[in-house]
Amino acid sequence: MRELAQQLRVDAVRAADAAGSGHPTSGMSAADLMAVLFSKYLRYDFSAPENQANDHLVFSKGHASPLLYALYKAAGAIDDAELLTFREFGSRLQGHPTPEIPWVDVATGSLGQGLPIAVGIATAAAKLESSELRVWTLCGDSELAEGSMWEAFEHAGFAGLSNLIAVVDVNRLGQRGPTMHEWDTSKLAARAAACEWHVQEIDGHDLEAIDAAYAAALAADRPAVIFARTKKGSGVSAVEDEPGWHGKPLADAEAAIEELGGIREVSVAVQAPPAPKPYEIARAEVERPGYEIGEKVATRGAYGDALAWLGSIDEKVVALDGEVGNSTYAERFAAKHPERFFEMYIAEQQMVASAIGMQTRGWKPFASSFGAFLSRAYDFVRMGAISDADLKLCGSHVGVSIGADGPSQMALEDIASLRAVLGSVVLYPSDANQTVALLDAMRQHRGVSYLRTTREKTPTIYAPGEEFRIGGSRTLRSDSADRLTLIGAGITLHECLKAADDLAGKGISARVIDLYSVKPVDAGAVIAAARETGAIVTVEDHWAEGGIGDVVAAVLAEAGVAARLERLAVTERPGSGPPEELLAAAGIDAAHVVAAAQRVAEPVGA
Amino acid sequence: MRELAQQLRVDAVRAADAAGSGHPTSGMSAADLMAVLFSKYLRYDFSAPENQANDHLVFSKGHASPLLYALYKAAGAIDDAELLTFREFGSRLQGHPTPEIPWVDVATGSLGQGLPIAVGIATAAAKLESSELRVWTLCGDSELAEGSMWEAFEHAGFAGLSNLIAVVDVNRLGQRGPTMHEWDTSKLAARAAACEWHVQEIDGHDLEAIDAAYAAALAADRPAVIFARTKKGSGVSAVEDEPGWHGKPLADAEAAIEELGGIREVSVAVQAPPAPKPYEIARAEVERPGYEIGEKVATRGAYGDALAWLGSIDEKVVALDGEVGNSTYAERFAAKHPERFFEMYIAEQQMVASAIGMQTRGWKPFASSFGAFLSRAYDFVRMGAISDADLKLCGSHVGVSIGADGPSQMALEDIASLRAVLGSVVLYPSDANQTVALLDAMRQHRGVSYLRTTREKTPTIYAPGEEFRIGGSRTLRSDSADRLTLIGAGITLHECLKAADDLAGKGISARVIDLYSVKPVDAGAVIAAARETGAIVTVEDHWAEGGIGDVVAAVLAEAGVAARLERLAVTERPGSGPPEELLAAAGIDAAHVVAAAQRVAEPVGA
Repeated sequence: MRELAQQLRVDAVRAADAAGSGHPTSGMSAADLMAVLFSKYLRYDFSAPENQANDHLVFSKGHASPLLYALYKAAGAIDDAELLTFREFGSRLQGHPTPEIPWVDVATGSLGQGLPIAVGIATAAAKLESSELRVWTLCGDSELAEGSMWEAFEHAGFAGLSNLIAVVDVNRLGQRGPTMHEWDTSKLAARAAACEWHVQEIDGHDLEAIDAAYAAALAADRPAVIFARTKKGSGVSAVEDEPGWHGKPLADAEAAIEELGGIREVSVAVQAPPAPKPYEIARAEVERPGYEIGEKVATRGAYGDALAWLGSIDEKVVALDGEVGNSTYAERFAAKHPERFFEMYIAEQQMVASAIGMQTRGWKPFASSFGAFLSRAYDFVRMGAISDADLKLCGSHVGVSIGADGPSQMALEDIASLRAVLGSVVLYPSDANQTVALLDAMRQHRGVSYLRTTREKTPTIYAPGEEFRIGGSRTLRSDSADRLTLIGAGITLHECLKAADDLAGKGISARVIDLYSVKPVDAGAVIAAARETGAIVTVEDHWAEGGIGDVVAAVLAEAGVAARLERLAVTERPGSGPPEELLAAAGIDAAHVVAAAQRVAEPVGA
Repeated sequence: MRELAQQLRVDAVRAADAAGSGHPTSGMSAADLMAVLFSKYLRYDFSAPENQANDHLVFSKGHASPLLYALYKAAGAIDDAELLTFREFGSRLQGHPTPEIPWVDVATGSLGQGLPIAVGIATAAAKLESSELRVWTLCGDSELAEGSMWEAFEHAGFAGLSNLIAVVDVNRLGQRGPTMHEWDTSKLAARAAACEWHVQEIDGHDLEAIDAAYAAALAADRPAVIFARTKKGSGVSAVEDEPGWHGKPLADAEAAIEELGGIREVSVAVQAPPAPKPYEIARAEVERPGYEIGEKVATRGAYGDALAWLGSIDEKVVALDGEVGNSTYAERFAAKHPERFFEMYIAEQQMVASAIGMQTRGWKPFASSFGAFLSRAYDFVRMGAISDADLKLCGSHVGVSIGADGPSQMALEDIASLRAVLGSVVLYPSDANQTVALLDAMRQHRGVSYLRTTREKTPTIYAPGEEFRIGGSRTLRSDSADRLTLIGAGITLHECLKAADDLAGKGISARVIDLYSVKPVDAGAVIAAARETGAIVTVEDHWAEGGIGDVVAAVLAEAGVAARLERLAVTERPGSGPPEELLAAAGIDAAHVVAAAQRVAEPVGA
């Protein structure tokens, strides 16, 4: 093990030296910890990463990637030549690990995410699959400053996840200097113990102590954390426990390798996992929900109904909610499929992290909260996309139309922020039957997708069972006499319909498009409408920036179509009040749509 | 005090009853806690909220607003008629408190934010002003599930903020059911103690116990937390400690008021604060930085230099950084003004919260981290805008041009997400001298502003001392023969300049615009360029969604200008590699700009 650990250090130094960048010293501190893990405790078949019985290993301190890649080499998963492609353009051995590497579950590198995600993996394994696998996580001490880590500690302790082991590499030095607590692990240990974890504090360079700590952690009846005091850059006197060496290759790699005893060819035979065990999933029968045309239903209610149905037709569907299930209506799923529902309390970061963890094991997680509060987990969603995660989000109570609760509860930035996530899908259904169809489309779609639901009840306008595809739209009113097009989605589509009726009374024929798929957008429908009617009014219960109006403008500008365009959106700080007063004050109700339409409508006879 | 507490309950019930919505039961649990605070401990002149010696009171559980407004009435700050305007359109007594009310420092309602912001207020008072004021915070037990609360506990304990008192209303019931720990406060208490707080656990309806706890909290030499076990809906048997009453007015308000002893006219004489004390701020002399034209300087370096200068000319400037000050170069401010620099470790939520707290006391906080990691604090920025906060953010290391560190470290969504913040300013300087000028413009601007800085060194193109305004742009190349316009900012402006040179060699004259102010945008310059050159290529190191290309498209579409438009942006998952290879792979380097320009350029003679 000592030889293996030295080889890991040497290879970390060599990889960073070849790259001319990277974090070798952050790996060297954890080399002994990982050498013991790979030699004696990890159960993983590197030739079959798809084996569902494999343990998981999450490098929460993703910048220690040179160590991770050195471990892959020692385990025979990659060769030395590939190790030295570290950080090269086109190499899968990137600066921070991503699932382009088959043995990596999730991208890390935004600190404070690996442990929360590991909680999700451990939850799936323990609570859904009755698996014997273990989830190992290597954490940094710096990242314990992230609140998300303590959400993870609390949730894992509360759930009693005895299959989770966190190894904290307490090397005392962050990027620019000492951490808050340096080598005093007592306070962190007390906090972890208060979260009901099995807690050990050890010397992270003492191989026997490490060995004993792993054994004790596995024997514990609860999640286990090992606070291991280490030295950054351990093994090389020029950098060991010295500040100023974060994220830098060593100045004299050759001397360092010599001091470490030179290049070795140690290989480690990682234990194979036991045979995977089958498991059963309880499934209640739930009919596909359908609503009568004209019936007033909130799309958030349809979300709950549809989710319960999806849980019935797809046993891989699971749901998580941020302690607002009686508002998002995730509670309707929980009522039918209690064993596949996870109450995440008011911890949106952990909720999204758990979802990302669960999907690494093939589950299809739907996570819901108020749209406004999903913004708390934005960095997790961003990283989820880099992980190529199958992450389905629902944000309820969007826009000023929530009414009396006021601006803190209004998601007015969700479309903009979630459109700006790699490969994301952003949907905003306008009625209950459409919500059902789109939620099923989300289930079948692999990737990050987001559904925006409305608090208020709106009339059902589509027939039960009608299908809607991601990337589509619906033209609800269309006539050759149309002199403009009204584009809305969600609650504003209903304002558009009212406005079209009013305009018809004024002798102005208006096309109406339901642009329910904000990303990807049905550019063809928008371009055709612009060409055929000459003018467009967009209406949205969202800030002007990055919303539906911007999407339509981009479609028109890129197509070179010069339609007259007016974009109605929320532009001033809203307050509390009844929904209809707030829609009017924001200038996005039917009356404002009518006024805008009159300004831009094609003159008669034009 | 008992009578006052009962009146607070009655008035909370009455306000919610008048509104037909709201959270009376969440206020009733804390009525005794607040009655004692207002009667005996709070020092606040409601007639002079601008008095710098006033205590602060932050309702971290903002949904308990009926209680807060009832307190204002009891203190004589509002009258009964105004109390009953709760949640009416146009009333300042919104569903959740906002600073439209003069005694409210910050908007709350997104749980888990009030205590972190209170830490910022307490930091300013204790560390910058040597003030004797105290910062009181009423927290909910549900919101202790947010990791941000534990960032606050850790930071306040580490800083020894003895002027901070957190009162946790442990009413056991969240929105949809019991909290994780219900009335077992022992684990939360152990965690707070491990964060070096003075900790008490009491019966939150025992007036004597409350009184004694406040006295002990004030005597403590560290931040103090009181875990007060209470009953939600306390005082009214129909709802007391009953689930299902979150966020609802009482079914029978009249009976409840009767059970509480009827309407009262108790007024409370809140103690006045002591006279404010003057304080001194150390100030080092720093020259305005200037760089020679042609000198290669990273704009992140210019940020550090400029911030140090601003600290010299404006004593209200303070800086916070998320443990990456040697990358953002905030360390250059710290070196000159150590007493006004705050190391926030890797806790971006607490960093932004502290900045928001500090600006409530007139400080001008600049908070920096990698742009990618500011996404961790997105909900805090969103709420900061609702608070009308003067919050200045800097995100470094933006875009694929950071190179080898890989996508987890690349801010490719920052422009989109930060544009979608109420009233925000988004700046992306293209050289060092411009960075200096824009940072000074940010200092003078009041509101949420964001500066995006580049990791790589780029040539200085503007003269030292040149002024740039928010909302402006610079046209760097312009000729009557221009057949198209290239629009970039930051690193892509330099690719545009290279492309323009190359195009000139090909006989194509190209206008070049530096669109450094992404929001607000210089629409006039964009429209004029489109009209005069007929074609535009935008280039940005950011996702296509919500970035510079979308901004330009919106300007053109809304103006009805039909220029040919091609938008170059990052559209696929980047990896690691040298900056120039990544710019090329993303299709945003000079060669791709040239190719796009050739596709859209106005034909000769057109």
